[in-house]
Amino acid sequence: MDKLAHNITACVVVIGNEILSGRTQDLNIAYIGKRCDELGIRLAECRVIPDVPEAIMATVDACRHLYDYVFTTGGIGPTHDDITTAVIARLFNRQLERNATAVKVMQSYYGPDNLNEARLKMADIPSGAKLIDNPVSGAPGFQIENVFVLPGVPLIMQAMFEGITDRLIGGAPMLTGSVVTGLPESVLAEGLSRLQDRFPEVTIGSYPFFRQGKLGVNIVIRTTSAGKLTEVTSDVTLLIRNLEGEVIKLP
Amino acid sequence: MDKLAHNITACVVVIGNEILSGRTQDLNIAYIGKRCDELGIRLAECRVIPDVPEAIMATVDACRHLYDYVFTTGGIGPTHDDITTAVIARLFNRQLERNATAVKVMQSYYGPDNLNEARLKMADIPSGAKLIDNPVSGAPGFQIENVFVLPGVPLIMQAMFEGITDRLIGGAPMLTGSVVTGLPESVLAEGLSRLQDRFPEVTIGSYPFFRQGKLGVNIVIRTTSAGKLTEVTSDVTLLIRNLEGEVIKLP
Repeated sequence: MDKLAHNITACVVVIGNEILSGRTQDLNIAYIGKRCDELGIRLAECRVIPDVPEAIMATVDACRHLYDYVFTTGGIGPTHDDITTAVIARLFNRQLERNATAVKVMQSYYGPDNLNEARLKMADIPSGAKLIDNPVSGAPGFQIENVFVLPGVPLIMQAMFEGITDRLIGGAPMLTGSVVTGLPESVLAEGLSRLQDRFPEVTIGSYPFFRQGKLGVNIVIRTTSAGKLTEVTSDVTLLIRNLEGEVIKLP
Repeated sequence: MDKLAHNITACVVVIGNEILSGRTQDLNIAYIGKRCDELGIRLAECRVIPDVPEAIMATVDACRHLYDYVFTTGGIGPTHDDITTAVIARLFNRQLERNATAVKVMQSYYGPDNLNEARLKMADIPSGAKLIDNPVSGAPGFQIENVFVLPGVPLIMQAMFEGITDRLIGGAPMLTGSVVTGLPESVLAEGLSRLQDRFPEVTIGSYPFFRQGKLGVNIVIRTTSAGKLTEVTSDVTLLIRNLEGEVIKLP
């Protein structure tokens, strides 16, 4: 169905009222998207949903059947609004159990005297789940089947994501190149369309931007073949020059 | 189902490979989220999907039945990868027609001599659709039933969104306040939970952040009642002081 043609797909489920209200800018989709490209996994969809049990349940259940991997972010902290872990346990019909390994890790992170009940809540993990190490702040995430439950704070999420990449099976890494010009999209459209027809296995994207009162275009070439990347990138550059445009470097 | 208790719901469908690949950081979800709060509309979900006809078709069709308003962003430019308009026309069984009003607007924006065929493609609008003015770069968006089709470039999307707010029916604006502290979430958890139980009609969110090697917490209070906002904000402040914490100002 998709020209990008990765075989392995993934979905990010961002859980959090704060993203939907616009108070917090999500940064996790972009991070996981980049890493999936490098890992040869096609990030096929992302969903942003509120901290509502029914929404988490329905969304994660739908996505785990649609995609090979599901990464959830958010809602695994110690406060009343952190409900992701309990909902995922319910989804998979697992009991929440105080996980001995998690307790040990958190004891060594916080010191044994600072492990209050709220913190210990973060050691309550669905039975049989595989822990995901948290090298930043102690409290682990976990994996059940193809669902990976990660925190929302970007720096912590990123560190934990790097700890699970060896559990993910990908394909050839997606290679991308980009050519930027001040020519309008409308002038480039016909040539880009012909180029796309000549290289159906390469994805050529045209992304206008608006900066300092002027429109420009970022042409992005995506393929798993280094040879095709070089070839199409040079063809795009040639197209721009033939249209009397300039290839510009972004600051 | 949701404590936020808006009656009117919305969904943002972000269409674009460039967001999924992490090359471009989405800014439209946060903008529309903030504006929905102000308009008394509950942004209940966002989905990010690729530039693939089947994905656009299935997602917009599902969301238009689930939510009162659907805002799509991206894929309405002049190049080969801009397929949103054609797919939405197909979804609603409408013909694409060169829209006379759109042509006129674009003639005056570009000048009659600069309206090439690629630009004119942006005047091809599904029959019977209501145009959405583009005060920045001429080419309009459109509305069919409860689906609003907007561009992806944030500055243009924002200007066009402001032009449709009078078509949207909302409720009481969502009011939000926030209190930031360096206390750990685990120390606050019990008190916040009790506060949430006392004010079930107010949403109290606890959002940890990680900055300069230290964790802090942003406690966000959301309600449509100005009185409750003041009351709960002052209770949260009191809770922090009772726990010997400091309320801090973010830079």
